[in-house]
Amino acid sequence: MSVLIVGSTALDSIKTPTAENPRLLGGSASHAAVAASFFAPVKLVGVVGKDFPKKYVTLYKKHRIDLSGLQVQEGKTFHWSGEYEVNMNNRRTLLTELGVFEKFTPHLPTEHKKSPFVLLANIAPALQHHVLDQMAKPKFVVADTMDLWLNIALDDLIRLIKRVDGFVLNDSEAHQLTKEDNVFAALKKLHKMGPKYVIIKKGSHGSILSGPKGAFICPAYPLPKVVDPTGAGDSFVGGMMGYLSTAKGGVDANIRRAMIYGSVVASYCCEGFGLNRTTRVKRADIDKRVSDLERLTKF
Amino acid sequence: MSVLIVGSTALDSIKTPTAENPRLLGGSASHAAVAASFFAPVKLVGVVGKDFPKKYVTLYKKHRIDLSGLQVQEGKTFHWSGEYEVNMNNRRTLLTELGVFEKFTPHLPTEHKKSPFVLLANIAPALQHHVLDQMAKPKFVVADTMDLWLNIALDDLIRLIKRVDGFVLNDSEAHQLTKEDNVFAALKKLHKMGPKYVIIKKGSHGSILSGPKGAFICPAYPLPKVVDPTGAGDSFVGGMMGYLSTAKGGVDANIRRAMIYGSVVASYCCEGFGLNRTTRVKRADIDKRVSDLERLTKF
Repeated sequence: MSVLIVGSTALDSIKTPTAENPRLLGGSASHAAVAASFFAPVKLVGVVGKDFPKKYVTLYKKHRIDLSGLQVQEGKTFHWSGEYEVNMNNRRTLLTELGVFEKFTPHLPTEHKKSPFVLLANIAPALQHHVLDQMAKPKFVVADTMDLWLNIALDDLIRLIKRVDGFVLNDSEAHQLTKEDNVFAALKKLHKMGPKYVIIKKGSHGSILSGPKGAFICPAYPLPKVVDPTGAGDSFVGGMMGYLSTAKGGVDANIRRAMIYGSVVASYCCEGFGLNRTTRVKRADIDKRVSDLERLTKF
Repeated sequence: MSVLIVGSTALDSIKTPTAENPRLLGGSASHAAVAASFFAPVKLVGVVGKDFPKKYVTLYKKHRIDLSGLQVQEGKTFHWSGEYEVNMNNRRTLLTELGVFEKFTPHLPTEHKKSPFVLLANIAPALQHHVLDQMAKPKFVVADTMDLWLNIALDDLIRLIKRVDGFVLNDSEAHQLTKEDNVFAALKKLHKMGPKYVIIKKGSHGSILSGPKGAFICPAYPLPKVVDPTGAGDSFVGGMMGYLSTAKGGVDANIRRAMIYGSVVASYCCEGFGLNRTTRVKRADIDKRVSDLERLTKF
């Protein structure tokens, strides 16, 4: 089955202590869509400006991503610029130029409205609501978010959480939302807000799922060097949704393995700037690291 | 086989945001010895003053810990006092009264010198050397440490690392020692310093082993509430060494499962002040949580 992915499509200018890369293909939907494409057909919904480089359209197409829901509008593509500190965990935003993203309203082509698997990648909660309003009974909906929406659109976000099957956020966002320092206490509170599945991402420490079949401690793939972690969280959830949409046997039977696949795609994402590494990955590379993780966690 | 454990034996006064507990049984050797005692006969080497409460001797004995190497000297028992912040991760030392610990020299009874498994729990590296000097060909020696020794006894510590089979430290100590932010890069550098097995502890994020059979990502047992993390690292390494010393098939075949057992004992440690919870645990409780961890990590 196919996955519908709605989120931001952007140009990212990224600085790390060792390098600087301007105007890479970025945005939550781009990372998630490429990640999901290793496992399933993907429909992307987003917006870009007239300045959006043709090579990035080619790149989406190389991954067989359905672009019929990608709007191309007069104006400039959303441009984000950020800088990482030496430890590659802390980053600060240098610049945000919303461009055509400022007035973006996701319109779903008719075919998209029937998508069984829906990933509401990181984007304003109001837009995530708007997508859900257009859907016809999706099978499994997951929403991701970021600290910005907790700060400026908390009510929208809280209403959204009630409408989705799965909610994904990182540990500092979970702390901000629940006031709980402890991840497992936070998971409990997040369930009370609505979703059946809650996943807290912990960066290089992996992630934790809490769902109807109990909790799952999902490892991160061990990387001795992180080049650029931008989009790793989006790749994780994109890979997970891609894997889930084609796995036989339902969500409960497959979500753990789906997280492992997401974790592996996220590890490739971290090994290059933007999508540079991820787009050179083959399915066999992914399967290799999944086997590695089996070996790395067996006892 | 039995485990020889050398380290500090102390009275801990611990403050958390919700409670205060004076003069609990503490110290690296106490925590490690009780943890190891669930799996193997333990010989403890340490020093206490004449003020050491009889109830704590009774408690050691309840765990069948051999106290023939525990010196009782004129003077006061080492007393440490610390306070935890709300998130239970950051702590500050309020008071350190060394007492009889100041002039402690570990003398091993003849029987102890032949112990096959040796845990040099956290204590000054010079004393860890002194123990090793007295040993007759131990089978497997592991050393733990703390940031204090990196600050005031670095040369001794670096010489010690070369002499042991396994070296255990936490992530911030690994960073301090190797200047590497990345755990896997740090592991590589630590191996170059000598030991065949290196374990980096990451608190609630679990631990990572790097050894001859590759790496192992060891989860922490999920706890929705941490009462007092003091001694959790000592419990982890103590439980690990206890399990290893009785497991059939050698270190490589058992170290992963040994870490899981250590992780479980550490989880119990965190659920009570000092050793309050650990000393009420039965072997069946431990096995139950090991099964839980199997389920929590399976994919």
